[in-house]
Amino acid sequence: MKKQNEVMNIVIIGGVATGPRAAARLKRLLPEANITLVNESSKLSYGACGLPYFASGDISDINELYKTSFGIIRDEEYFRDTKGFSVLTPYRAENINRIEKVVHVTQVENGEKSSLEYDYLVIATGASPIRLDIPGAESDRVRTFSRPDDASYYRKLAETGQLGSVCIVGAGFIGCELCESFTALWGIETTVIEKEAHVLPTILDEEMAALVQAEMIKNGVTVKCGATVAGFDEGNDSVTVNLGGETLSVDQVVMAVGFTPNSVLAKDCGLIIGETGGISVNDHLQTSEPSIYAGGDCVESYHRILNRGVFIPLGSIANRHGRLIANNIAGREDTFPGAVGSLVVKIFDINVAATGITEKCAKENNINASCVWGSFIDKAEYYPEWEYVYCKMVYERDSGRLLGLQAVGPGDVTRRVDIFAQLLHQSATLDDLLDIEAAYSPPYATALDPLYVLGCIAKNQEEDSINAVNPEFLAESDFGDVNLIDVREDEEREAEPLKVRNANLVEIKLGDLRTRASDLRSESKAMVVCHRGVRGYEGARILKNAGYENVAYLGGGVSFVNAMKGEEE
Amino acid sequence: MKKQNEVMNIVIIGGVATGPRAAARLKRLLPEANITLVNESSKLSYGACGLPYFASGDISDINELYKTSFGIIRDEEYFRDTKGFSVLTPYRAENINRIEKVVHVTQVENGEKSSLEYDYLVIATGASPIRLDIPGAESDRVRTFSRPDDASYYRKLAETGQLGSVCIVGAGFIGCELCESFTALWGIETTVIEKEAHVLPTILDEEMAALVQAEMIKNGVTVKCGATVAGFDEGNDSVTVNLGGETLSVDQVVMAVGFTPNSVLAKDCGLIIGETGGISVNDHLQTSEPSIYAGGDCVESYHRILNRGVFIPLGSIANRHGRLIANNIAGREDTFPGAVGSLVVKIFDINVAATGITEKCAKENNINASCVWGSFIDKAEYYPEWEYVYCKMVYERDSGRLLGLQAVGPGDVTRRVDIFAQLLHQSATLDDLLDIEAAYSPPYATALDPLYVLGCIAKNQEEDSINAVNPEFLAESDFGDVNLIDVREDEEREAEPLKVRNANLVEIKLGDLRTRASDLRSESKAMVVCHRGVRGYEGARILKNAGYENVAYLGGGVSFVNAMKGEEE
Repeated sequence: MKKQNEVMNIVIIGGVATGPRAAARLKRLLPEANITLVNESSKLSYGACGLPYFASGDISDINELYKTSFGIIRDEEYFRDTKGFSVLTPYRAENINRIEKVVHVTQVENGEKSSLEYDYLVIATGASPIRLDIPGAESDRVRTFSRPDDASYYRKLAETGQLGSVCIVGAGFIGCELCESFTALWGIETTVIEKEAHVLPTILDEEMAALVQAEMIKNGVTVKCGATVAGFDEGNDSVTVNLGGETLSVDQVVMAVGFTPNSVLAKDCGLIIGETGGISVNDHLQTSEPSIYAGGDCVESYHRILNRGVFIPLGSIANRHGRLIANNIAGREDTFPGAVGSLVVKIFDINVAATGITEKCAKENNINASCVWGSFIDKAEYYPEWEYVYCKMVYERDSGRLLGLQAVGPGDVTRRVDIFAQLLHQSATLDDLLDIEAAYSPPYATALDPLYVLGCIAKNQEEDSINAVNPEFLAESDFGDVNLIDVREDEEREAEPLKVRNANLVEIKLGDLRTRASDLRSESKAMVVCHRGVRGYEGARILKNAGYENVAYLGGGVSFVNAMKGEEE
Repeated sequence: MKKQNEVMNIVIIGGVATGPRAAARLKRLLPEANITLVNESSKLSYGACGLPYFASGDISDINELYKTSFGIIRDEEYFRDTKGFSVLTPYRAENINRIEKVVHVTQVENGEKSSLEYDYLVIATGASPIRLDIPGAESDRVRTFSRPDDASYYRKLAETGQLGSVCIVGAGFIGCELCESFTALWGIETTVIEKEAHVLPTILDEEMAALVQAEMIKNGVTVKCGATVAGFDEGNDSVTVNLGGETLSVDQVVMAVGFTPNSVLAKDCGLIIGETGGISVNDHLQTSEPSIYAGGDCVESYHRILNRGVFIPLGSIANRHGRLIANNIAGREDTFPGAVGSLVVKIFDINVAATGITEKCAKENNINASCVWGSFIDKAEYYPEWEYVYCKMVYERDSGRLLGLQAVGPGDVTRRVDIFAQLLHQSATLDDLLDIEAAYSPPYATALDPLYVLGCIAKNQEEDSINAVNPEFLAESDFGDVNLIDVREDEEREAEPLKVRNANLVEIKLGDLRTRASDLRSESKAMVVCHRGVRGYEGARILKNAGYENVAYLGGGVSFVNAMKGEEE
């Protein structure tokens, strides 16, 4: 037992986001405590999310990623003097003795061993990039991308002209960011390989990913989806990527197939590990051992929609975990409410943001999901220089509970996704979307907020069975007996012709549809097509009111379809 | 009583936002109904919020404001053919006979009178600009600004070189927008007069308004606050504005002193009018007569924070009212949850957004409010081209209930204000701010969201009595016995010197404060000053932990203070 008046010892393992945040706050709340942070590398508290932007050349000096906003490098000295806690680097934590409350550590450079007693221990060991266990993966020309060294490695090759071509394995968040990093400034020939059917498979559904792929292709990236890498063969001055039959020879391969939580230390000392491989924690971020807390990318987070533990390695969450752990150790009740997963990524000139779950994820989890789509603009239509934002909203059919939002386009996407995340945290329904109060003025938005419009069309879909159809539909080649009714104006049809084969296509502009509805074969299924989706709904409604039973409209309109093809103006 | 099978008559008075929206939706929900919209002007459904941008030259053709997103003018024909309802213009509604359910109307051009029977009536008469009842206000050179004619009038004068100088009376939303409209492209000498102590007095507190005023002054606008206009004298080629003693001679005067709800028609037929002058409606937007609904700028909205009716003339709300009224008339239960007031306005290169109430408004309503300030940037600090966003958050002291957010700066302000509005609708507290899940990536945000940081510093203020001080404090000239402790780095002090007179100023950078805390006079009040506010808090915390009892820090830091003076880099 701790003697009275004895100083409390707190040991923190990990020095990137959660660790330093927890340590700094602990020092403020418990100024007498003896706080020691241990990190395997001497590189501390860097802006890991900035690494692709150093590789790309957007950030000129890698030290920028280590600096505070006031220009001081976050090193041992900084943490000691400014934050008041000790840092031991480079020290590797070897194991944890829960009975004796001791962490055994090794000085990485000289191998010296020592031990650190703790009253409370914080595990913030982060996550590591996954290395596929396939032939040739150990080649020097095959690397992962997660640390400053990785970014510096590629940057140096690029700057010295030694990187003519690269293959990125994995079109997730980082894989897609790196496509821009390699091509935009350096002009490196870039191929991205994804085993799933489309890029960003955990974040986006297929039709939304098509918008991103179009942008990548437009910028010269070769995108190969549904392709599996069998292995690599290193040559003298290149490496060959084996894709089953096909091969690809490049200078370098980046393996960007995801991350795995660094939970070995926790597992080895008997802490409970979740099904995802992350350390299991309660809502105080306490592990199965009450004196040990864990946070950041090494833990499993409670997912508020899926109602189970998931692995969400996000810097924004890792930072919040740091404060929360410190509060709890200092005796302040503080809980983590779980996450819905909110993220944004820039891919060339396209902004991609998403929160909650995709339609595919809903199906995999046996949630009866419905969807609506919309093509929006981010300023008033009469205001100069607006940009498109394509949205897909996923909700639960019976309850109307909101499940997810995906927003992709050159326009402002983060605002809507952040509001939507807030709604997801409230377990909001479609009705709540109609109550959103969004700040409006022509330079910032349209008078009707996109989320409000998505709410309206989803309500229309549920209450009046006027269904939106996935914009992928128009990419099909057989439309059967569906009447495609194009309600656009003549100028719009000329500007963006509807390229469909084998379709029973009728052109009636919306203003004429009421009077001409009776000309149509009301026994066929009618699908109304417009530019952005709103008139499509109105047209479907007119037909329904005129006696048509089987009517639908193209979600997002021709604008969405053409953007999927990279043809939007 | 209506005979069975007889067609339902719905009359709608007003053709800008609420009216056409209600009419169009009614036609979709009740295709058999006979829907007539009456409007005094033949100009229908224009984007009123775009008028300052036509005056400014940003929008070249005023018809853009009348067009749908697919390029069709919203006129009588459009509403008849596309939306399926009738429009009578120019017809003035003269009075409402509630017993006979009849609206008496007059054709404005030929004076012909007729009457319209209704089963349901929708009053959507909007609001009118207030004309001060002072001498000379009827001069041709004194106008208000609310209709397309007004925008065209000034645009024509500007284009033909007949507008050299203008005086705008009232520095509200529109008055401030017009400052940019007149000066940016046309170079018109512009003076704005505001009777309150600062610009945007209902939206911003004084120190936030100072940020806006600095921008206006930088762009050549003369800003006179706390000044009352006594009257106008029209000359041959100018008009003189009398400001008590001082006078100002200009070519034109724009009176932009606010709006008043057009509720006379409702009042005259005996409907209940609220204290604000707006028509009183329940949460179904039903007036005191069940068959009469009202919405948009002519009604009083329930304010969710003030818990009473307020007059909030905003286009975004007016549009929502239209759908809601239609739903209720069509027998669908639909309620308006009240508003918190969310808006955004562009003033030169500064974005101004706010939601909820100001500190001043809280005081006037006897709410015990506390505030925190923060100087944020809208991208990661290492990412190129970030911009500042200055924030003030108002919350209730004891409950921690959120009350309002003001955000001003060249950076992205709308995202945070929209999230905050959502929190206000939930009656959220400071704790909820710490649970926000915001999408993060370096090109879009900082890893710690500004709202999260504001939540943290407010919690610190409440739990640990480390108080933020209004950045206005540094503008004072007598600091008494306050120790100002500047914890910035040397380079920061050189770049932005702290210009204070009569202050007991000590320079100790944050990294040295722990060791040098004992040098300071702990009996004095200490105020810690840094660049953006975060280190100020940390410094105050260090001093408090070192035994200082009376410590505070400068909210928003020197960055905020210098931006108030227009000196921020």
